[in-house]
Amino acid sequence: MELEESGIGEECGVFGCVAAGDWPTQLEVAQILTLGLVALQHRGQESAGIVTSNGANPPTYSTHKGMGLVNTAFSPEALQKLRHDNLGICHTRYSTTGISELQNCQPFVVDTLHGKIAVAHNGELINAQALRKRVMRHGVGLSTSSDSELITQLLALTPPMEEQDTPDWVARIKNLMTETPTSYSLLVMFRDVIYAVRDPYGNRPLCIGRLVPISKLYSSGSGEQDTEGWVVSSESCSFQSIGAKYYREVLPGEIVQLSKHGVKSLSVVPRPEGDVPAFCIFEYVYFARPDSIFEGQMVYTVRQRCGRQLAIESPTDADVVSTVPESATPAALGYAQQSGLPYIEVLCKNRYVGRTFIQPNTRLRQLGVAKKFGALSDNFAGKRVVLVDDSIVRGNTISPIIKLLKEAGATEVHIRVASPPIRFPCYMGINIPTKEELIANKPEFKDIAGYIGADSVKYLTIEGLVSAVQEGIASTEDKVINVSQKRVGHCTACLTGKYPVELEW
Amino acid sequence: MELEESGIGEECGVFGCVAAGDWPTQLEVAQILTLGLVALQHRGQESAGIVTSNGANPPTYSTHKGMGLVNTAFSPEALQKLRHDNLGICHTRYSTTGISELQNCQPFVVDTLHGKIAVAHNGELINAQALRKRVMRHGVGLSTSSDSELITQLLALTPPMEEQDTPDWVARIKNLMTETPTSYSLLVMFRDVIYAVRDPYGNRPLCIGRLVPISKLYSSGSGEQDTEGWVVSSESCSFQSIGAKYYREVLPGEIVQLSKHGVKSLSVVPRPEGDVPAFCIFEYVYFARPDSIFEGQMVYTVRQRCGRQLAIESPTDADVVSTVPESATPAALGYAQQSGLPYIEVLCKNRYVGRTFIQPNTRLRQLGVAKKFGALSDNFAGKRVVLVDDSIVRGNTISPIIKLLKEAGATEVHIRVASPPIRFPCYMGINIPTKEELIANKPEFKDIAGYIGADSVKYLTIEGLVSAVQEGIASTEDKVINVSQKRVGHCTACLTGKYPVELEW
Amino acid sequence: MELEESGIGEECGVFGCVAAGDWPTQLEVAQILTLGLVALQHRGQESAGIVTSNGANPPTYSTHKGMGLVNTAFSPEALQKLRHDNLGICHTRYSTTGISELQNCQPFVVDTLHGKIAVAHNGELINAQALRKRVMRHGVGLSTSSDSELITQLLALTPPMEEQDTPDWVARIKNLMTETPTSYSLLVMFRDVIYAVRDPYGNRPLCIGRLVPISKLYSSGSGEQDTEGWVVSSESCSFQSIGAKYYREVLPGEIVQLSKHGVKSLSVVPRPEGDVPAFCIFEYVYFARPDSIFEGQMVYTVRQRCGRQLAIESPTDADVVSTVPESATPAALGYAQQSGLPYIEVLCKNRYVGRTFIQPNTRLRQLGVAKKFGALSDNFAGKRVVLVDDSIVRGNTISPIIKLLKEAGATEVHIRVASPPIRFPCYMGINIPTKEELIANKPEFKDIAGYIGADSVKYLTIEGLVSAVQEGIASTEDKVINVSQKRVGHCTACLTGKYPVELEW
Amino acid sequence: MELEESGIGEECGVFGCVAAGDWPTQLEVAQILTLGLVALQHRGQESAGIVTSNGANPPTYSTHKGMGLVNTAFSPEALQKLRHDNLGICHTRYSTTGISELQNCQPFVVDTLHGKIAVAHNGELINAQALRKRVMRHGVGLSTSSDSELITQLLALTPPMEEQDTPDWVARIKNLMTETPTSYSLLVMFRDVIYAVRDPYGNRPLCIGRLVPISKLYSSGSGEQDTEGWVVSSESCSFQSIGAKYYREVLPGEIVQLSKHGVKSLSVVPRPEGDVPAFCIFEYVYFARPDSIFEGQMVYTVRQRCGRQLAIESPTDADVVSTVPESATPAALGYAQQSGLPYIEVLCKNRYVGRTFIQPNTRLRQLGVAKKFGALSDNFAGKRVVLVDDSIVRGNTISPIIKLLKEAGATEVHIRVASPPIRFPCYMGINIPTKEELIANKPEFKDIAGYIGADSVKYLTIEGLVSAVQEGIASTEDKVINVSQKRVGHCTACLTGKYPVELEW
Repeated sequence: MELEESGIGEECGVFGCVAAGDWPTQLEVAQILTLGLVALQHRGQESAGIVTSNGANPPTYSTHKGMGLVNTAFSPEALQKLRHDNLGICHTRYSTTGISELQNCQPFVVDTLHGKIAVAHNGELINAQALRKRVMRHGVGLSTSSDSELITQLLALTPPMEEQDTPDWVARIKNLMTETPTSYSLLVMFRDVIYAVRDPYGNRPLCIGRLVPISKLYSSGSGEQDTEGWVVSSESCSFQSIGAKYYREVLPGEIVQLSKHGVKSLSVVPRPEGDVPAFCIFEYVYFARPDSIFEGQMVYTVRQRCGRQLAIESPTDADVVSTVPESATPAALGYAQQSGLPYIEVLCKNRYVGRTFIQPNTRLRQLGVAKKFGALSDNFAGKRVVLVDDSIVRGNTISPIIKLLKEAGATEVHIRVASPPIRFPCYMGINIPTKEELIANKPEFKDIAGYIGADSVKYLTIEGLVSAVQEGIASTEDKVINVSQKRVGHCTACLTGKYPVELEW
Repeated sequence: MELEESGIGEECGVFGCVAAGDWPTQLEVAQILTLGLVALQHRGQESAGIVTSNGANPPTYSTHKGMGLVNTAFSPEALQKLRHDNLGICHTRYSTTGISELQNCQPFVVDTLHGKIAVAHNGELINAQALRKRVMRHGVGLSTSSDSELITQLLALTPPMEEQDTPDWVARIKNLMTETPTSYSLLVMFRDVIYAVRDPYGNRPLCIGRLVPISKLYSSGSGEQDTEGWVVSSESCSFQSIGAKYYREVLPGEIVQLSKHGVKSLSVVPRPEGDVPAFCIFEYVYFARPDSIFEGQMVYTVRQRCGRQLAIESPTDADVVSTVPESATPAALGYAQQSGLPYIEVLCKNRYVGRTFIQPNTRLRQLGVAKKFGALSDNFAGKRVVLVDDSIVRGNTISPIIKLLKEAGATEVHIRVASPPIRFPCYMGINIPTKEELIANKPEFKDIAGYIGADSVKYLTIEGLVSAVQEGIASTEDKVINVSQKRVGHCTACLTGKYPVELEW
Repeated sequence: MELEESGIGEECGVFGCVAAGDWPTQLEVAQILTLGLVALQHRGQESAGIVTSNGANPPTYSTHKGMGLVNTAFSPEALQKLRHDNLGICHTRYSTTGISELQNCQPFVVDTLHGKIAVAHNGELINAQALRKRVMRHGVGLSTSSDSELITQLLALTPPMEEQDTPDWVARIKNLMTETPTSYSLLVMFRDVIYAVRDPYGNRPLCIGRLVPISKLYSSGSGEQDTEGWVVSSESCSFQSIGAKYYREVLPGEIVQLSKHGVKSLSVVPRPEGDVPAFCIFEYVYFARPDSIFEGQMVYTVRQRCGRQLAIESPTDADVVSTVPESATPAALGYAQQSGLPYIEVLCKNRYVGRTFIQPNTRLRQLGVAKKFGALSDNFAGKRVVLVDDSIVRGNTISPIIKLLKEAGATEVHIRVASPPIRFPCYMGINIPTKEELIANKPEFKDIAGYIGADSVKYLTIEGLVSAVQEGIASTEDKVINVSQKRVGHCTACLTGKYPVELEW
Repeated sequence: MELEESGIGEECGVFGCVAAGDWPTQLEVAQILTLGLVALQHRGQESAGIVTSNGANPPTYSTHKGMGLVNTAFSPEALQKLRHDNLGICHTRYSTTGISELQNCQPFVVDTLHGKIAVAHNGELINAQALRKRVMRHGVGLSTSSDSELITQLLALTPPMEEQDTPDWVARIKNLMTETPTSYSLLVMFRDVIYAVRDPYGNRPLCIGRLVPISKLYSSGSGEQDTEGWVVSSESCSFQSIGAKYYREVLPGEIVQLSKHGVKSLSVVPRPEGDVPAFCIFEYVYFARPDSIFEGQMVYTVRQRCGRQLAIESPTDADVVSTVPESATPAALGYAQQSGLPYIEVLCKNRYVGRTFIQPNTRLRQLGVAKKFGALSDNFAGKRVVLVDDSIVRGNTISPIIKLLKEAGATEVHIRVASPPIRFPCYMGINIPTKEELIANKPEFKDIAGYIGADSVKYLTIEGLVSAVQEGIASTEDKVINVSQKRVGHCTACLTGKYPVELEW
């Protein structure tokens, strides 16, 4: 809900599953795909799509797509048709424009001389315009404005394909990676295999999980011989809901093959000398579900550290600490722990109001976001409140909340924001308001506290955020990352304007 | 979600609105009704209905009903038709049976010799079977099994109606109240007036709010001259979302008239000598939204006191305290405050998974409720966890959560339940599983900790619950209640088997 | 389509089915009900409803209702739930007002002291207002404005019901028939029996069919021992589509019981001395499907006789005879046969255009009904055309057709209408435009040919219509009618203003 | 309905419209497109799509697509968005497979270096497989199996496109026509122009109409100065419903440009020396609406001639002639006129039953197609009936009809089929059952009368059909055809196995 109001949103989530062992599998692949996708629903609510394969040569693919949430887009009847398949990929999409169309719904399936491939994509190609011109100059007509169709056409285009060729998708994927450095986390399905690909900068997340028998789920020490299948997902939070265990991340630049025989790293495409990875720091701050794991650390823990860091940087003389539910809660608890102030709840959220279609005019629009919250006044009447929020993007939602708290008896309201001000657009997969809409670029920002009616407003510093994020990576035991990466880096372009690669325009 | 799994649910919510001042009003009554109802959505998700009136004599009523959540049931087109009306009532219904039908959707409108009345009802008539027989013996056919139709037919039936009569609905409502003591909170709309009625035991909640101009909403001291309209609602939590201020409760046995001229108490029907009120104690424990106010106290605060009381009654040698999100959080914070143990979050809930239609077989059913939660393992690995839940009804949802926490590293998990065991059915408006399904009535209850896999399980005592509830009332400043009621009482029948009135069967 | 444009329409169709022999039956009662109802779809397209019973004591009834055509209103899933039932009734409703609501959808089911009854009704009670007052004075609230609810309440009301009574629905139905003389064809289902009732004037049709094994369907001489079930329907046209054979009409005033044991006449309620039956003559002219049988004769044949009679009354000096498809075709063929002129087709109808939602403004509205037709100009260019229509109600649809024909080359267009002008409202179940809208009551009617652009216009006379209808009855071999009725009569109120019973207002 | 049961169907219909005169136009282009498409609904009921353009440079295109009939696929809201556009094309599609997907819905829009083009296609490329390989070898991935996407990619591909080029779509279309000879009728929209293209063999129909002011519609002699716009359509039957006048056919091999300035022939691509045109003869027999005009003659008239020819070839000693409604009626009337036997109606069709979803098992399936018809027994009892049908494809629908007629009293039933037996598949846009399913290829065909229960069965000869079709062309006054074509020819491949071009496989 806050996402919608702040106008900042993730582009997509991708998920894939391959049944291990003999086929036809007993594993309900289509159900696992759907539930895995539901767990990524926070990454996109516009449309959802699923493509499954029986894995034969040539394969039979089944596709289902629909608008809206996963449970709206996929009817039980639709899933029923997919239930005997052995592998598949799926996708959920964020609404970036007013007009959303089914034809932009992923995964894309295209027929080539080698047969059909299916592609699901999270990210945004930084040089998309140049690449579009390139394929159109080659005589290809593009039927959508999506990067995903562009990617599939690029995969088909180079190197030239001959019928008698042995399909070499890895070579094609590598070629794609040389043509466009970032950002993409891709799933490419061909016959009986899923290729999981992350761009060389590792800008978007992608990780692998292992499906174990439920009876083994809550016991330690189960080896790969107990594996029922492999899953790949934008976020590890989707593993819990299907009974999978976290296995590892796909590395920046890596192509991993998932098949019934297991997981195999096929290649790691390097970045130019000197470049460090550039994993989106806002995945930590804002987008990811708190129980997801990136770079060996839990997102919740990072957010809690941000709150602690914020308390160190901007202590407050107040009585209680609270949160704008629900996303800011880890940071608020971190702030409370660091500051020693008691943590309380000040707002009760109406879980239903956000889904209503009503376009309130006059009266109801004036109420603003406050109509979604009830004040738990007994908890804070007569007190000075530190209210921790995870970000302030346009500055139009926090103001009615402050009014609400003051009306309900708060003597002071101090806003503490657990991330730095957003000042620049993102060209790598995040939907951010225009520069003009960002509160940090407006004149009012100079007196932001006065503007929103707070007694004080403090943001986390960029350095504070980076250290809160990277502090945990140093201590991680995920050796794979340490060995292959040696260096740690994050994309902070929306805060600093420093993009990981040079922009074309 | 937990409600659904526990199998315990509220029957309904009712809401009404009358525009103050000159008619036709500029107030968007239909929008206010809809948003007010959305705020009561937690009381019922099966169907929703709205009836508005232009308030003329004879009036024109407009009705719209539909299945599902309010935003599904009411399309913008449907609301558009109602938008010029001056008053109205609406209703949201809980699905008590597998087969839910639109014809059971309220409000009911019936035509009588005096014209049409519309009725919305929350509750359950304790002597419904006898009353049904009575009206059917009179020659009335009943087209539904709902108490609401029965109530409207009873209102039409007695006293006998003549065309030349002046309509006297108050007399009819009083007569109804003598025929059936509980439970009902009723809204009866006739032409330009809404009668708000609460049964003599006050078993179901009902309260009144005042719509003020938004510009006056966040300023103290606005008098009745600033009133834009009056609203009446099952819970005061609906006032915030429409810009209304809490005015007062409808008293047990009271008939209040809402009209454009204001609020007027017409009568208070007394209970038999010696009887105390019997407001449903589970509204505090379980059903109501935490920001609602009953008997002068906020529900959140009562739940927090329950948690404190539980810590006094059942202290635990542990490292951290946490909640099963979201409903148990106030009690968990209360427990933490009283015990001095740190409060942390251990579970992250997938807000989308509950809405999916998927009927998981085998694998996914085995995962149980755990598929809705991600474990925030960093927060509690290696620690002893006190997990506070608000109730354990059937005992089948807490077990997978305990497994999940232990697998994620909790060394001990102690369950503390912030209410006593439910042992008896409710006949006054709450849907409770059969006696056989209640865990407290099963042999396994003797070793409930072993049965669910916890290291210990403790429930709040009945005395503890009652004192936690009533402690706040003593200190309330809501003089209306103190003066008119003098005595305080609550229905604890589902815990004790002692029903406020004798059951017929 | 023409119905819609002419603004004249039937109110409803009813259909029932009881499986014969041992229960649970193998017969798919719900499917037979649905297909039978589909065959009555021309009698009403607003909504459809079905109620089935397992026939036990007490019975379990299952109900499904929906807006729109039968195939929209009844989903396969809904029917699936009803498929094990042994008997049932269903109803399709005509949209008489702009606002159509599901709550007016029939059959009605009400609970009484004796248990539940279900009622489906075709017709309109001529004294409905007085009866409504009567039941409301008794203290009954009426939740709809439909006669059907009124009928069910009247059935419950008199004689007074006691729990220990043996249910005597026949007595109640007889009582109802004394309270209201016309118009109704009713199906009343109670437990394991359907009562089929036709009002004493026989104003609306109702007939009985016998389901035979398909293997016997196309062979003569199969006796009742081959009966698989019994059906009752507004029109016999529904029998063919389900494999049933026409058995007989329900007589005016008759109560027939259908059960698994067969068909039994329980009573024939007489009319006042001297009154003749008053079967609606417009069922022949307009409403019924041409393959339906009334009073022993096929509707098609009556329409053909109307065309012959019209040719006798109003011969034309022309080259060819044609029809406004499709309803006027029998009359046109009759006219052609009698006149000796060749029958040709002049118009091709677009079967899809009528269903489009488009509200054409300016240009497309000007095209009028002509946009539904293509002119088959080769067939009539240079010729003088007699165009036979079945009725001209408002006079606004025939004019563009005449223009179209002339533009396509017809040298003359002579309109011959196979029924007399409608001049009066119907209060017995037919929806007719207001008196002011009827072309026959307008000043333009004096020069109707000039008004609509025809070279001449002639209507069938009332005497001609009556004789064309009654001529066939005289020769019918349906002895049941001849014996019990002795007299023949039809309601021609919309043509003559002579209503079969005195109107109250 | 019969189409569905016979398993033979047209692939598609296309329609386009350009407003004449100054833009923005007052003409409701989107409405005209929709109504024009509705008139082509018989050519495809699976899905419908519309693309409109504002005609600017660069243009803004608006697209709407949906499954089902036009009125289901296009909501009023969707059309509302398109209503200010100045030109557009649309398409309706026939369901050729069980699985129908929105992504196959036309028109296709693709982006090229020159900007976006939209393409709508009726037909089937005879060398599609080779062309698919060709474009895939060029590195293009194809996202659908439709020829339409293939056509758009071919248009983009050759000749090579450079950004600085002036768009030359005519050259591209000509190139396409050299790569694939048949079958296609195409509409290509680019900015402010529609190109209407018919393949060199003229296999599929395409014709042009002129929108005139309604006030001029029914008056002769209106010149081009009264033109409000131009339309292009698969069939001229769509002109009547929108108030357009037939202008002319697009010639085989012709590229016609429609713009606000009028209609302009840009090129006529010739066939190889010696080849005659090959317009699909089944458009006359079966697919087209009877009021459409092909090659200067009305389809109805051709069908009537087929009936006359059939009467000459296969006279019958019988009493009456009738039709299987509705498509065989022209042939039946022709047969009656030639034979001198009286024409009557024997079957009444239930217009609603075909739309029902019910999957009847056992009983109802046994009834077969007869459940859609009522026998008008009075018309033919005791008589010998000649029943004319337009074609017998699989032979499974006529048999229950014969049974029905005999059961209803026909003493003999002689089947006369107004077209020759279908024996071969079509590869040019018609969906025909497999060779094995065609009754004419089965052993039972030797005694077809015995097999279907008729007293005799006769088909029209191939020579008879060809002469009945071509006889009218000789006498046509449509000089354009005579001049440019000089020769007349029709594709009879499904009857003779002689395809107009050599097949590849």
